[in-house]
Amino acid sequence: MDKYRIELYESDIPKYVQIAKHIKRLIDINEVNDGERLPSIRMLSKLLNVNNDTIINAYKKLQTEGCAVQKIGSGTYAKKKEINKNFKKQYSEIFKKMSADEAKNYIDFTGENACSDFFPVSSFKGVLNEVLDRDGAEALAYQEMLGYIGLRDSINKYFWESSLNNDNILIVSGAQQGIDIVSKAMINVNDNVIVEKPTYSGALSVFKGRRANIFEVPVEENGIDIEVFKKILKKNKIKCFYLMSYFQNPTGATYSIDKKNEILRIAEEYDFYIIEDDYLSELIYDTNIEYKSFKTLDVNDRVIYIKSFSKIFLPGIRIGYLICPERFKESIQNSKIDTDISTSSLMQRALHLYIEKGFWKEYINHLNIIYKDRYNFMKEQLKNIFQQKVEFNLPGGGLNFYIKLSDSIDLDSIKLFYECRENKVLLTPGVLFYKNIKDGERFFRLGFSKVDNNEIYKGLNIINNLLKR
Amino acid sequence: MDKYRIELYESDIPKYVQIAKHIKRLIDINEVNDGERLPSIRMLSKLLNVNNDTIINAYKKLQTEGCAVQKIGSGTYAKKKEINKNFKKQYSEIFKKMSADEAKNYIDFTGENACSDFFPVSSFKGVLNEVLDRDGAEALAYQEMLGYIGLRDSINKYFWESSLNNDNILIVSGAQQGIDIVSKAMINVNDNVIVEKPTYSGALSVFKGRRANIFEVPVEENGIDIEVFKKILKKNKIKCFYLMSYFQNPTGATYSIDKKNEILRIAEEYDFYIIEDDYLSELIYDTNIEYKSFKTLDVNDRVIYIKSFSKIFLPGIRIGYLICPERFKESIQNSKIDTDISTSSLMQRALHLYIEKGFWKEYINHLNIIYKDRYNFMKEQLKNIFQQKVEFNLPGGGLNFYIKLSDSIDLDSIKLFYECRENKVLLTPGVLFYKNIKDGERFFRLGFSKVDNNEIYKGLNIINNLLKR
Repeated sequence: MDKYRIELYESDIPKYVQIAKHIKRLIDINEVNDGERLPSIRMLSKLLNVNNDTIINAYKKLQTEGCAVQKIGSGTYAKKKEINKNFKKQYSEIFKKMSADEAKNYIDFTGENACSDFFPVSSFKGVLNEVLDRDGAEALAYQEMLGYIGLRDSINKYFWESSLNNDNILIVSGAQQGIDIVSKAMINVNDNVIVEKPTYSGALSVFKGRRANIFEVPVEENGIDIEVFKKILKKNKIKCFYLMSYFQNPTGATYSIDKKNEILRIAEEYDFYIIEDDYLSELIYDTNIEYKSFKTLDVNDRVIYIKSFSKIFLPGIRIGYLICPERFKESIQNSKIDTDISTSSLMQRALHLYIEKGFWKEYINHLNIIYKDRYNFMKEQLKNIFQQKVEFNLPGGGLNFYIKLSDSIDLDSIKLFYECRENKVLLTPGVLFYKNIKDGERFFRLGFSKVDNNEIYKGLNIINNLLKR
Repeated sequence: MDKYRIELYESDIPKYVQIAKHIKRLIDINEVNDGERLPSIRMLSKLLNVNNDTIINAYKKLQTEGCAVQKIGSGTYAKKKEINKNFKKQYSEIFKKMSADEAKNYIDFTGENACSDFFPVSSFKGVLNEVLDRDGAEALAYQEMLGYIGLRDSINKYFWESSLNNDNILIVSGAQQGIDIVSKAMINVNDNVIVEKPTYSGALSVFKGRRANIFEVPVEENGIDIEVFKKILKKNKIKCFYLMSYFQNPTGATYSIDKKNEILRIAEEYDFYIIEDDYLSELIYDTNIEYKSFKTLDVNDRVIYIKSFSKIFLPGIRIGYLICPERFKESIQNSKIDTDISTSSLMQRALHLYIEKGFWKEYINHLNIIYKDRYNFMKEQLKNIFQQKVEFNLPGGGLNFYIKLSDSIDLDSIKLFYECRENKVLLTPGVLFYKNIKDGERFFRLGFSKVDNNEIYKGLNIINNLLKR
């Protein structure tokens, strides 16, 4: 309680502002922890010798600024902004500054997208030219706010067996933009959002940016822990649940059909929406895994489906799409317009032709052959090289493994990251994927999209030597 | 006061929530006006027979939801969300649904971008192919978070005489995205923002979406009214001021150099930032107008400069850039990453080559010749055809005229819009550019980017006939 004591002074700055600032500082320097209950209004007003209204106003200010949450009948709780900001910042600075040439000196396990080496430049160049010859400058005008109708129609036909209404498909510039515009349309300050634990750091950033309250539910091998999930739902009005249905980033977990149906049922019962980020479901190596998205199983229009073409196709194309529930369709469309009006129309037309000509299917088949081989190779090498030093599950698809350091290893994943980097190996420390940095200290992600078998072998041995020390 | 009376019932819904909902409804249906002072806590608690804390909590809730603003020492004020949402919605639906073929049946005065008819498809196709031949799949990988270094370097060299640091340039997907990511980085709930009155509706939407308090300052012929501006600054802590320095949208006004210097001085004095949307400054027809952006005159790093290439070049390319003050550089860069990671790299490389080869300069010169001619033609026709029915200023550049209906005309701009549409003419009613729909009822914007002299003559005569009735 004593940490809340503060010398209040007479000035233009009202007392309640002085108090709010003091508490904000306590939260920033971890004197008050994220989620810690703040003193009751009565206790704090007594301690600081001010009246109740002053404390009420201070707490109100903290709430407005997203530094506190009021739970009805239970009090006010501290909310820490960007807990792992510091490391995240350093991490992103490293990649921000790295040129393509520099990157070539590293064995790079951070890849999240299919490698550009496999990209069929000549057929893509072909469709681009065909579009420009066919449409002329029209290809670069932005007529259609929902996206090029040809592309929306191909998506419906080739990926959804024409089961959708083309008007419910909205073209966006990749999954990150999808998450951003859905959040703008749905999530307000202090709304409650559930995410998987761990989850994609880009999604966490967006929800934090909306000043949402974020609840994390642990991911098991076949999806989230339903019991923990239900406990949260019973106590809190939840707006939405963000998940990755296949080869979850970073854990590689895939939801079982049963778990999907159960979550859809609960969504209806507790009246929340599911944001399904369909991440890399094109790459299935384990034949026991069947492809059935939440969206396909969704009978109550509870799912906002997000698909990026940038992950599997090529990052620089910056195209993806959303399928909106009828209820949010309009606000999500408007949110897209406010965000960047529309997505590059030339690229949309090129992708449309690329799909229509059957190149897309060919390309995906090709990737599956290459990456299945790498996946199997890496799986064996992880066992052979690391032996008892780590634990991991087998995702059965996708582009990475999520590795846990065994208890015997005296190293956290941030240190491991820096040591690897000195040895010209890049990996992704688990700390990026959790609200609280501590939770990810024993984990790291190894992606195999940008490394061939040779590099995998070499890179894993370098990491292993660091673990041995 | 009586409108605030409400029957409170015992239920799971706390009384303060019931009260907040009731007031929210009053605001929605205009029983309480935007900016109207809500009753004092004491008066309302007495009226509803509840204690003060209940009202405090209700007001707090309204504030969190962005429906009210507390002004210290003065009380709580209603804040209407999206005042002109209804017409805006109808307006945007009309354009959302219009196909390119349908649009051809209209004489279209709504154009905001240079017309695609003038776009040199073949030279653009040339640079695209050159990039793909040179860089291969690399052209479609997204290595650089700030944007392709080649393009940033060309921008610095050709548009800024190499006066910038390339790291302070951030490539974005057009001005709309620039405004969106700057807002995310700078503006929080209830922050104060000043805009020009009238202003670009896409910017208004973004600031509203951030739940900012928006102050409007009238635009005069040479920029905003400085006296009104200062009055607002004296009473309120302002975070930023959004403006268009050349051929302001919709008024066509251009800031005088003196006014720019004065505003920059005031920005330092009152500690706020200027978001400069450099809109269409490439098209200057009046030789008395000199090009000198706020950014060029800025000695205190107070300007966030936003430039779209989509307006003048071609909309479908979706490229623009930001110049960030050192202080906000990092948060604006992170905000871009959270928004969509990066902008299409192929397009960036193509634009880079397009500028380097001198095509850009050629293209702009060509546009200036065409549009100066149209501008002069339209200026004469506006006078000849409309005569005393309207008033307007001469922008001396850009792509549109902003027209005021004379008092003798008994028609508002929404009605005019619908009547014109029935007669196959499209124009933009002024109501879109104001916080309060009423303020724009006597105005409309006529853009000449998509209409040739023939259509201008025909279209203006159709509008004139409607005004005569």
